[in-house]
Amino acid sequence: MDPLNLQTHTEHITNPLYLESGRILEPYDIVYETYGHLSETKDNVVVVTHALTGSHHAAGLYEGDNKPGWWDGLIGPGKAIDTDRFFVICSNVIGSCFGSTGPMSPMLPSDEPYRYKFPVITVKDMVKAQRILFDKLGIHRVHAIVGGSMGGMQALQFAVHYPNFADRIVAMACTHATQPWTIAFNKIAQEAILKDPDFKSGYYDPADIKENGLTGMAVGRMAGHISFLSPHSMERKFGREYKRTDGLYELFGKFQVESYLEYNGYNFTKWFDPLSYLYITKAINIYDLSRGFDTLEEALLRIRSRLYLVSFENDMLFIPEEMRVMADILAKEKTTPVDYLEVKSDYGHDAFLVELEKFKEYVREALEHGI
Amino acid sequence: MDPLNLQTHTEHITNPLYLESGRILEPYDIVYETYGHLSETKDNVVVVTHALTGSHHAAGLYEGDNKPGWWDGLIGPGKAIDTDRFFVICSNVIGSCFGSTGPMSPMLPSDEPYRYKFPVITVKDMVKAQRILFDKLGIHRVHAIVGGSMGGMQALQFAVHYPNFADRIVAMACTHATQPWTIAFNKIAQEAILKDPDFKSGYYDPADIKENGLTGMAVGRMAGHISFLSPHSMERKFGREYKRTDGLYELFGKFQVESYLEYNGYNFTKWFDPLSYLYITKAINIYDLSRGFDTLEEALLRIRSRLYLVSFENDMLFIPEEMRVMADILAKEKTTPVDYLEVKSDYGHDAFLVELEKFKEYVREALEHGI
Repeated sequence: MDPLNLQTHTEHITNPLYLESGRILEPYDIVYETYGHLSETKDNVVVVTHALTGSHHAAGLYEGDNKPGWWDGLIGPGKAIDTDRFFVICSNVIGSCFGSTGPMSPMLPSDEPYRYKFPVITVKDMVKAQRILFDKLGIHRVHAIVGGSMGGMQALQFAVHYPNFADRIVAMACTHATQPWTIAFNKIAQEAILKDPDFKSGYYDPADIKENGLTGMAVGRMAGHISFLSPHSMERKFGREYKRTDGLYELFGKFQVESYLEYNGYNFTKWFDPLSYLYITKAINIYDLSRGFDTLEEALLRIRSRLYLVSFENDMLFIPEEMRVMADILAKEKTTPVDYLEVKSDYGHDAFLVELEKFKEYVREALEHGI
Repeated sequence: MDPLNLQTHTEHITNPLYLESGRILEPYDIVYETYGHLSETKDNVVVVTHALTGSHHAAGLYEGDNKPGWWDGLIGPGKAIDTDRFFVICSNVIGSCFGSTGPMSPMLPSDEPYRYKFPVITVKDMVKAQRILFDKLGIHRVHAIVGGSMGGMQALQFAVHYPNFADRIVAMACTHATQPWTIAFNKIAQEAILKDPDFKSGYYDPADIKENGLTGMAVGRMAGHISFLSPHSMERKFGREYKRTDGLYELFGKFQVESYLEYNGYNFTKWFDPLSYLYITKAINIYDLSRGFDTLEEALLRIRSRLYLVSFENDMLFIPEEMRVMADILAKEKTTPVDYLEVKSDYGHDAFLVELEKFKEYVREALEHGI
């Protein structure tokens, strides 16, 4: 038997989901993966939450794939999120394009996709939908929620809005509210997608895009890739290496970094949906833990989970200060235990996916003992 | 009489310009402005060099304009670059679109623009063309060369390749060689321009673009505007302010930072030429002071000017380290006097255009006494 016990499920939910905007999503599907085994008392659940372009496939290998889930180094038997001990659930957020209901899902009872008729969703909505899923699974309290980037936002949103739901929250490489620098990067992608004639104002044929790519989304993703790295990691990764077969004085001659961006940009359009990209970046942009409260402090004081905040020194997308401000508030107010770690790193935002060595023992400790 | 004594001239040069690539540009025009008065012995010349989208119009007001030249706060009677004392020359670089020969200039004897037949030019070529202009003006040695960003690159290229030409070099907010992070930002713009159908593979009608804009260049310019600021300055400038007339849960509702990027991005396409943008960003990308030498050190050891290097703490396009490495080499080798200033600022790259208060006395001192 697979020691990871990877299972994929889809939950079809027919009750209406009341969204923050006042709109309603119904019915909707949530696809999720689980790893490990649920204990009889259901007290060993760890929820893992994914980032913008992530999915429920956080660990293990699908048959025929050569790349495992996006946090495979962290989740598994004996690993930091130890599936010998914990039952791990990772679900695909609503709005995404990997099986949970999103803008390209059929707007039942018709067969036609929602497209722009899909409601704007928020990180809080993503979390609410997951909470409903867990209720259906008979899970009303979890050992921990762990996530990075938009996954960290979800973890924090859980902490604030369902204070009695999780014993521990580990939020990495994120923020209490998305700042203009990050909104600006998302803007590049949104604008490039919207203005690409092949996007057809949202009425594209997904098969076309999978086959031919979508320049606008590729360009936008290139901007994303800048924000995921840092000047130092780019220098180390690419330096000023030039493509060996290109002339230096050719107008279209390329540096390695340019090839990298092109490859990743265009490749991305083959596996991600442009409308999902618009909706999820919108959710990230309007994410603000303090919405609905008078101050950020008021929001944070609701938290009853043990809180572990992890930032990365050269994260250019969510700078460490944005995490530290939360740690400072809670350290002062002492309403709940909080620990803050700034990981030494010059990699940039992607460190939370790449430099696992630097924080996996921290995560293990947080889950097993508390720090 | 105008105390600034602003004059605009065009020099038509018929001798061939031998480019770094091995190609030849002939004939070519250089448009330039002068401020102040040339002394009889021609010993009071200060050359000012411009950045990517800058021009020869560095100071003063044209009739009917409400915005003065790009460094007007620095150049003028009694100002840091004092036109009561110095004769200031600023020329538009070749490849640009403000009068000097560039890709949209007619490829004489035909009336047709060069477009892609324009040769790739380098920062060294820009400097060579200026040197030839100055020779024609009977100026064989100058008091100082001052520039920021690509202007700083030109100043340094002058220093390395014409070691006896300038007594002083003030280079700001630039680098010894463009690093991959910056190349990546340029890539966004290049890719977005090239793939825009309205760019017509370079065979666009400039009047069309001036009238209707060019989405690809707008998107690229938005990416540029991110790189010109910093997370902190964006936060201060925009915060999370939302357009008052937009709904938070509207997919296309906008934050102020998004409006800012849109406005500046689309506006830019009305006053800058896309082929010039491709050629000049190419020149910036392949800029490397050490090209033609075994090491950067070898290149720098040629310098005989007094060298003033100014970086800005939160410059995200050319990080201070890239300037400091030059200062360190020269401070160690003591082949020429060098001074390095890191300006305290969280504004970002644009500080060299905006936060003049922070370095204008430094420039004055550098030009008047030497520091």
